[in-house]
Amino acid sequence: MVTDDGLGFRRAHPSALPVTGAWRPGDPPGRRKFLELPPDRPFALEGGGLLRGVVLAYETWGELSPERDNAVLVCHALTGDSHAHGRIEAGHPTPGWWNGIVGPGAAIDTERWFVVCVNVLGGCQGTTGPASPHPDDGRPWASRFPVVTIRDMVRTQAAVADHLGIERWALVAGGSMGGMQVLEWGVMYPERVRALLPIATAAAASAQQIGWWSSGRRAIAMDPRWRGGEYYDAEPGDGPHEGLAIARMISMMTFRSDDVFTQRFGRQVVEPVEGYSLWQRFQVERYLEYQGDKLVRRFDANSYLLLTKAMDLHDLGRGRNGLRPAFARLRAPVLSVGISSDILYPPHQSREIAELAREAGVPARYAELDSPHGHDAFLIETEQLGAVIREFLASLEDDHD
Amino acid sequence: MVTDDGLGFRRAHPSALPVTGAWRPGDPPGRRKFLELPPDRPFALEGGGLLRGVVLAYETWGELSPERDNAVLVCHALTGDSHAHGRIEAGHPTPGWWNGIVGPGAAIDTERWFVVCVNVLGGCQGTTGPASPHPDDGRPWASRFPVVTIRDMVRTQAAVADHLGIERWALVAGGSMGGMQVLEWGVMYPERVRALLPIATAAAASAQQIGWWSSGRRAIAMDPRWRGGEYYDAEPGDGPHEGLAIARMISMMTFRSDDVFTQRFGRQVVEPVEGYSLWQRFQVERYLEYQGDKLVRRFDANSYLLLTKAMDLHDLGRGRNGLRPAFARLRAPVLSVGISSDILYPPHQSREIAELAREAGVPARYAELDSPHGHDAFLIETEQLGAVIREFLASLEDDHD
Repeated sequence: MVTDDGLGFRRAHPSALPVTGAWRPGDPPGRRKFLELPPDRPFALEGGGLLRGVVLAYETWGELSPERDNAVLVCHALTGDSHAHGRIEAGHPTPGWWNGIVGPGAAIDTERWFVVCVNVLGGCQGTTGPASPHPDDGRPWASRFPVVTIRDMVRTQAAVADHLGIERWALVAGGSMGGMQVLEWGVMYPERVRALLPIATAAAASAQQIGWWSSGRRAIAMDPRWRGGEYYDAEPGDGPHEGLAIARMISMMTFRSDDVFTQRFGRQVVEPVEGYSLWQRFQVERYLEYQGDKLVRRFDANSYLLLTKAMDLHDLGRGRNGLRPAFARLRAPVLSVGISSDILYPPHQSREIAELAREAGVPARYAELDSPHGHDAFLIETEQLGAVIREFLASLEDDHD
Repeated sequence: MVTDDGLGFRRAHPSALPVTGAWRPGDPPGRRKFLELPPDRPFALEGGGLLRGVVLAYETWGELSPERDNAVLVCHALTGDSHAHGRIEAGHPTPGWWNGIVGPGAAIDTERWFVVCVNVLGGCQGTTGPASPHPDDGRPWASRFPVVTIRDMVRTQAAVADHLGIERWALVAGGSMGGMQVLEWGVMYPERVRALLPIATAAAASAQQIGWWSSGRRAIAMDPRWRGGEYYDAEPGDGPHEGLAIARMISMMTFRSDDVFTQRFGRQVVEPVEGYSLWQRFQVERYLEYQGDKLVRRFDANSYLLLTKAMDLHDLGRGRNGLRPAFARLRAPVLSVGISSDILYPPHQSREIAELAREAGVPARYAELDSPHGHDAFLIETEQLGAVIREFLASLEDDHD
């Protein structure tokens, strides 16, 4: 059911697209390990409400040292998952999203560090989310799943740390939504982190970011196949994939840059036709459609709604009398990394993180990736970013000595 | 049916939203004049195909001099229309879109210049478009309406010029999609323009621009109420307003800037509620929804599809062996204006226009509006832009002497 159109984009026939791309119990676990939170102690959410039967999927690389001082937490972004390092294999439809940064001999060297990555709460790759079975009736949570926040995600990660016997992370690192988790770690658990590495992120979501993400949510909600979130019983091909694909198209536009699109696609059309038609596509349109389809096969529309909302709600200062008092809780040194061409999380926001941290009295530095790749540079520019991370880690060792 | 929510945003009940916001024969004409193209001579489109029964709506201000040498054409952008100057009145739901630039005593002084603005072909404010009656059956053209190009628009404007006895425009000016028309005027009718003023536009649409506009088109096409373009018979409130509103949200995001959204909305929520809900809105979301609703009342979803496609097809070099040979046709001096914070038509594209014109041997200058307002600055920064235009017009007079 997959066709190659001869131009490198393999597109699925719509009927082959699943109603949800979520990993579900029974699917191959791949490298995942699972932590079930105690069923007698429901997980209390920041927004009120209790979540019972929470399962957390995570992966680890390397060995925890006897002193338990070499643990690194990497936090994934919106459409990432626990598979920060590794190949495509049964249970893992994508290669490790940070293969260039995490691995043997890489900047976050798994021969030196014990690296952990947890699929976020509300996600769809093994950790409890809207596609997971509700403990009451075994049917998907669907629209019953409550709104979660970045802080809720971080508290689930703390549960994984407890489970693994990690009292203090040597480093918490991540980009985009992952960077929001990094910052919350520093504020919520100042004694449990030795260093923070937020990348291409913000201390609080801006109105513009909220505007982008909410446009995508509205596109999903408009898809008649979304069915108010109750689509899991639909036939294959009858899920909200068009809405999710449009949301993905919008976000792909904000993830990349003018330069990159021009260089890669220019004004090439897919198939030249006589005259013009409204739905004749330029290459860039097919690329975006292809990206949309690809996401549909490994993601869940309801998770997309929840995680983008969590990003919109992200505000380190919320309930803490503002950003400055929040930053005053930090104890760990901060390296904040921005990306020169990022239009979604513009570099001034990453600079602001370093400034606020410095004002709060912790050692803090700002580094900028000089890249034409836009926001996604934190996944692409692994050489440049790797060098920055190596230097940061080395400086921490020096302090430690 | 209009409610004011107390926060300055008056929202219509969905059932009060029209299926199309197009001006239709029988509606108050306002200031519009109409030119009917001869019914025996169908209008041939660039993409092939003939359009019969074309009507062009236009407005004029000031008086044509006996020498007919003071005519200025202003070209409107995507959601503009012929109402470049004036008030809200019967037939005109919006004030003149360039009131600060065109008018008595303004930079384009209607006491000095005879100013003309024509609603574009395929639009929805009086000129023939998809909501207009088809000459065969009197029913809306709807999906039968052919794809039009910027060049087609310019040729209809030439017909208006002929009708008004204007052999040569003293100036053709416009921003965004209007700027594309300005450039095509210079290339298609080099002898009919004395000066060109393209603002915040491009010599050819970039892959990124195509990506943005095509996302909006897909949102409209996903709206089940769009009905393949055949929605004009629907009940009020049953038109494709959700799809059009989402397309508008996406474009509003690209029209403005991070700074402006932050300053205006920050992270304020519409109504604070206990806990969080997925559809609880931030102010910026309500603003975008309000802008979406507003557009739905005065625009037509099928026109949105056609005009954004016309912009994607815009390429001065198409069929002319590329940009350089196209620019070589220019005879008129060019002032190309860019906007410092424009993420949709970034300033480098406006600089490129001036460079290509200079290389082609016409006097050409680049000026940049220093503005935080993003793309929309060409509608907002009327003082800064007005000064630039005055200077340009004065320099032309000098040359003339």
